[in-house]
Amino acid sequence: MPNIKAIIEYDGTEFHGFQKQPRLRTVQGELESSLANLFKERAVKVIGAGRTDAGVHATGQVINFAAPEGFPVERICLALNSRLPETIRAKAASEVPEGFHARYSAKARVYIYVVLNREASSAILARYVWHVMQPLDVEVMRQAAEVLVGRHDFVSFGLPDKPGSRTEREIYGLTIERRKDAILFKIKADGFLRGMARSMVAALVEAGRGRRSVQKVAEILAACDRRAGGKSAPPKGLFLTKVEY
Amino acid sequence: MPNIKAIIEYDGTEFHGFQKQPRLRTVQGELESSLANLFKERAVKVIGAGRTDAGVHATGQVINFAAPEGFPVERICLALNSRLPETIRAKAASEVPEGFHARYSAKARVYIYVVLNREASSAILARYVWHVMQPLDVEVMRQAAEVLVGRHDFVSFGLPDKPGSRTEREIYGLTIERRKDAILFKIKADGFLRGMARSMVAALVEAGRGRRSVQKVAEILAACDRRAGGKSAPPKGLFLTKVEY
Repeated sequence: MPNIKAIIEYDGTEFHGFQKQPRLRTVQGELESSLANLFKERAVKVIGAGRTDAGVHATGQVINFAAPEGFPVERICLALNSRLPETIRAKAASEVPEGFHARYSAKARVYIYVVLNREASSAILARYVWHVMQPLDVEVMRQAAEVLVGRHDFVSFGLPDKPGSRTEREIYGLTIERRKDAILFKIKADGFLRGMARSMVAALVEAGRGRRSVQKVAEILAACDRRAGGKSAPPKGLFLTKVEY
Repeated sequence: MPNIKAIIEYDGTEFHGFQKQPRLRTVQGELESSLANLFKERAVKVIGAGRTDAGVHATGQVINFAAPEGFPVERICLALNSRLPETIRAKAASEVPEGFHARYSAKARVYIYVVLNREASSAILARYVWHVMQPLDVEVMRQAAEVLVGRHDFVSFGLPDKPGSRTEREIYGLTIERRKDAILFKIKADGFLRGMARSMVAALVEAGRGRRSVQKVAEILAACDRRAGGKSAPPKGLFLTKVEY
């Protein structure tokens, strides 16, 4: 059966994360039931590049699944979107070689975290940003971010999917940019531990607030202890924007 | 008692419009109960500049209300926001002369309507845009918009709040701008009839799709008949962005 790769966008607010869970509304669950309905099959297995947590959004999640022989690929997006809830959309679909695996073939993942940094929060953006009232020093946050870039053991910032698995990852880039009242954290890595993006953003924001020094961020990383990582930024500010193969 | 003017932002998705209605969740209802709680009064009357429909958003709604003598104005936003749902925010508050009335003192109102004009709809923007798949001709829509600018009887596009009231309004400006995949309709007028902004946008989009000529839009206006106006654009794309005094 043809192997199909699709790019998926979703508003994570009303889902219990990407990964299928019994009796809970998840993105994978919705995709699998919509595809099964479309292909008139009992079950379709969907593989996702990133297992985003509850409340986390995506503009560039990548999935793959098997389509029935002869099903026109150019029809998949429209037909799938007519079956999906409005808050999950298929943006593109194409046939890929049999060996393509959305998760294991991925070379890099890009997440963007959005902080709204001004006194007043926003009613319209409430579901998509973390509102931080205190002024943040972008320069200090950039210095702290430099500490995290590169290949490190990131266990202080997150846990592996399976206990005992490798916790080394490589961050290819971590840029911080202010656009009007928003501060965007863009993190590109070969992979992310569970909670890693949000823990790192929380640590950087603490540095930007002046509550934690750049040196302290380096110490947290060096501690190699999940308890050292501290708090997490809320899921609603996080977007999986791109997966590279 | 001091008369307070405040600028209010809200996500209209989960409200039955601005105006208070028995047993329904409305923006005015939420504002009045939060202010009553803040001021420890039995009831606070809120006057709004625009009675936005269910699902319509605002980034610049203006309200006024009476505050207790001596209540520090600079504390109102923060104290009110801590009592309001996350999807309604007070952005600014100031004391104004006794005669200021958010609705009757308004000289102009500005609404922006957002159309997402591309093949794929968006999961993230689903609550805030009208998705129109067919390519829209912005130049044709601008020509049709010119027909509507000025002082006219707009009864073909909307109804007055009270049957028999004046249906003449003056549109000061109607600009249409494409920004990437979005088309923004910005309409400034002395006032709007009920449903007027959304009916006008629907008529312009029909022209932009090539289904209706510029001449036809002029005929609808000239008909002075609500039945001539046709369909309405969905409320979720509409934002009350500014009220001028």
